[in-house]
Amino acid sequence: MSTALSGDFAATYLTGDNTGVLTTDAQKNAVYALARQQAPLPAEEFGQRLGRHFVSAAPVQRARVRAEQHGWRRLDAAGAPHPHSFERQSGTRIASVMVQAGGGSEVVAGTGDLVLLKSSGSEFKDFLRDEYTTLAPASDRILATVVDARWRFAVTPPDWDASFAAATGALREAFALTYSRSLQQTLYVMGEAVLAACPEACEVRLSLPNKHHFLVDLSPFGLDNPGTVFHAADRPYGLIEGTVLRPDAPPGDPDHDW
Amino acid sequence: MSTALSGDFAATYLTGDNTGVLTTDAQKNAVYALARQQAPLPAEEFGQRLGRHFVSAAPVQRARVRAEQHGWRRLDAAGAPHPHSFERQSGTRIASVMVQAGGGSEVVAGTGDLVLLKSSGSEFKDFLRDEYTTLAPASDRILATVVDARWRFAVTPPDWDASFAAATGALREAFALTYSRSLQQTLYVMGEAVLAACPEACEVRLSLPNKHHFLVDLSPFGLDNPGTVFHAADRPYGLIEGTVLRPDAPPGDPDHDW
Amino acid sequence: MSTALSGDFAATYLTGDNTGVLTTDAQKNAVYALARQQAPLPAEEFGQRLGRHFVSAAPVQRARVRAEQHGWRRLDAAGAPHPHSFERQSGTRIASVMVQAGGGSEVVAGTGDLVLLKSSGSEFKDFLRDEYTTLAPASDRILATVVDARWRFAVTPPDWDASFAAATGALREAFALTYSRSLQQTLYVMGEAVLAACPEACEVRLSLPNKHHFLVDLSPFGLDNPGTVFHAADRPYGLIEGTVLRPDAPPGDPDHDW
Amino acid sequence: MSTALSGDFAATYLTGDNTGVLTTDAQKNAVYALARQQAPLPAEEFGQRLGRHFVSAAPVQRARVRAEQHGWRRLDAAGAPHPHSFERQSGTRIASVMVQAGGGSEVVAGTGDLVLLKSSGSEFKDFLRDEYTTLAPASDRILATVVDARWRFAVTPPDWDASFAAATGALREAFALTYSRSLQQTLYVMGEAVLAACPEACEVRLSLPNKHHFLVDLSPFGLDNPGTVFHAADRPYGLIEGTVLRPDAPPGDPDHDW
Repeated sequence: MSTALSGDFAATYLTGDNTGVLTTDAQKNAVYALARQQAPLPAEEFGQRLGRHFVSAAPVQRARVRAEQHGWRRLDAAGAPHPHSFERQSGTRIASVMVQAGGGSEVVAGTGDLVLLKSSGSEFKDFLRDEYTTLAPASDRILATVVDARWRFAVTPPDWDASFAAATGALREAFALTYSRSLQQTLYVMGEAVLAACPEACEVRLSLPNKHHFLVDLSPFGLDNPGTVFHAADRPYGLIEGTVLRPDAPPGDPDHDW
Repeated sequence: MSTALSGDFAATYLTGDNTGVLTTDAQKNAVYALARQQAPLPAEEFGQRLGRHFVSAAPVQRARVRAEQHGWRRLDAAGAPHPHSFERQSGTRIASVMVQAGGGSEVVAGTGDLVLLKSSGSEFKDFLRDEYTTLAPASDRILATVVDARWRFAVTPPDWDASFAAATGALREAFALTYSRSLQQTLYVMGEAVLAACPEACEVRLSLPNKHHFLVDLSPFGLDNPGTVFHAADRPYGLIEGTVLRPDAPPGDPDHDW
Repeated sequence: MSTALSGDFAATYLTGDNTGVLTTDAQKNAVYALARQQAPLPAEEFGQRLGRHFVSAAPVQRARVRAEQHGWRRLDAAGAPHPHSFERQSGTRIASVMVQAGGGSEVVAGTGDLVLLKSSGSEFKDFLRDEYTTLAPASDRILATVVDARWRFAVTPPDWDASFAAATGALREAFALTYSRSLQQTLYVMGEAVLAACPEACEVRLSLPNKHHFLVDLSPFGLDNPGTVFHAADRPYGLIEGTVLRPDAPPGDPDHDW
Repeated sequence: MSTALSGDFAATYLTGDNTGVLTTDAQKNAVYALARQQAPLPAEEFGQRLGRHFVSAAPVQRARVRAEQHGWRRLDAAGAPHPHSFERQSGTRIASVMVQAGGGSEVVAGTGDLVLLKSSGSEFKDFLRDEYTTLAPASDRILATVVDARWRFAVTPPDWDASFAAATGALREAFALTYSRSLQQTLYVMGEAVLAACPEACEVRLSLPNKHHFLVDLSPFGLDNPGTVFHAADRPYGLIEGTVLRPDAPPGDPDHDW
């Protein structure tokens, strides 16, 4: 959870007059106190209430609240899900909310560490060749990425948790079902799938690193390598980014750093 | 995957005479080549074959092979598990194998990042109080840890994959079912559970960081906090370590750094 | 070093037609080839030439080139600096260049990991107190931060290396000489100092985490603690951000993500 | 700073009886309190006093204390070193002390992140060639590493700080002055140099990753590359380890994990 406030804080920057500064320590305390006073809420809704609290104070014009939520699964024990024992799951749910003192707010949801891989059904060929292009075309390659996705809401969905589940399910299914001619193409299909699954979302931003899996050359050892042994490289790597926007999407908040 | 060879390499250290040095690059190549020549094997068995290869060369007396294996789950797409699309799972399977030129080998299996939490069923009280003890006794605390576990085999199990599943299932279930008077006690029960689930294992080593969840003091804000809002602290933290050994366990290899 | 190209790449996203895609692999090769063809250049200048190369290709409209440079110091050996042996220094020099196909370019320089600490000469008091404020005023506290600074150039300085040295020297000296009433005030003075030291720079952005050093309460042990023993905490922490802009600064490139 | 205690803690592991457990929280408090009660001490000496404190309590048989110390340099400001403003330096000083209840203690010093590079004066050739060896011999290569070094003391040196400076100076100078036929050879010379510089030390352990710098093949672009452009690779990498022991070194403490 992080909170960021902006507004008329000129005095502290210019003269060290702190009388208008809400301390970061008090911001932290407000998170705890609000968590106590509310029933558990989806992160998007908690972020809105917390942001609303912050902009109610005089010098604060805008409050951005970001939350990261880890999933927990009940442990099975003695043949049944255990009542109070849990295992943490992979996958992070992200909410970023920007609240304006005037009243408006913008909600962005997302996921940050969904690692997906296709062992087939991916090619990359017929690309531009300049004087520095040495990459060989690939008709059947491994495609792997860590999905970093955010989607902005134009209107509030009826159920934040269901909306998140629909969006991440759509990301997974689009990745699986798309025969990929490029990671760019897969990105666009994934973005479209989120918009289709979340009618209240109007913009999707995706950042997909290309986690290269290089076929190892085993010919020095008298061996062929028909798609069997790969080197999963870390760096350097390609990074494909893109935004999918509904034609009728309202403009986003330029101050909201997702 | 990492490999470490030891043997009579004195010449390169003392004089820079490299005629007895098997390069680390060749070790890497051997991993790839062996992976091509074998059908897929459990990590423990692959490690043994690779180590056996290394010690077959003249100056190598001992080879240690460590592997880390990530789990992948098939994606569901169009109502069925997809044939070639996968999502990475949390949890790492570890195998560490030490092979001696003479013939013997020692196999250790393990897991490295299993995050477990009990929201109840844990206390810590009646501990020693010295002049620097300020910790309050806790009758009902959150207990959370990242399980780092290794277990050594005295004999080869019939099925490495089944053995790993049994061991990690035992770790989870023991954590869930044990009413915890201390993380030390939970550790011991978890170690015993691995030995019970894996009759071929003879020694279990556990390293359990205490991922503290501190109840936040909300009284300055006129609020109580009956186990509702916690601060999940990073550092400093306690680390509980222990070894559970069968009475009849054969001695382990002192050169094998698990 | 990272490169990012944008332009008319719609076809690959929409249809998987890759004929307009300059591969990330070719971008990497271009970096290597340009490095061979040039005498060593300051990162800012190398970035401009590399960016100019990229936008000379048809579909590329904008190229952003970012470089991180580590410092190396000659080792002293046998009483003199050694001709070809070096030790890496702390501190990272950053250059981010955005080149437009039309001809313009924007250069930003910066530093990323300068850790500074004042053991005295810092206070924080007379701040706003809301219902969640519990922080005690501090008349003499430790102030520590990791300086993340970027500065944008309106015109090209005569010597990039000298300009970088002047800017980072100014950051250090402003931090040292300023009696700090708040980290915000220190930030502003540091930003002004960069503008004073680099007449060609027109905008400075600073992001300063407050690396808290909390005085440990030793009273349970019958000990006072007059500014002697501190807990250097990791999280949570405050983050102070700010921009210092010359009144006559030309507008920046909105697509340039520093 | 970390502390680890061992002794007769069987009860808490076996039954959850915590009456003999000195909490990790009290260990932390003891660090703070001892820091208050002592004048500033070298890390090795502080570790000994802290360890001595811990083993004075009944069930503790052995205490291991590890400290990591970062260097700080005074900032220059207004033409002079500033009295209370500092910049953190690269390089970490490590001390690991094992204290026995009976009275003995073992002190190990070290350094953890010294990055060294030779741009010439390093070769690697005439090595063993097995069926998986494809590495080309190198007559003039870049040699780079991150020195992880520890040295054990047989007797207490007159000045811990001077001893540390002598040891790290010797590591640097040996690296610089040695024409390297292998990283193994360089390692041995570095170990010998520490023993020569620290007469009280009796054993040196070094772990040196080979930070490969690969010459980039620019021939596809019609360019030569006479040692000009390199790819600094992360992984995979070779790791060279070794111990240099005086012939008359007393045996080390087998329970002391450096």
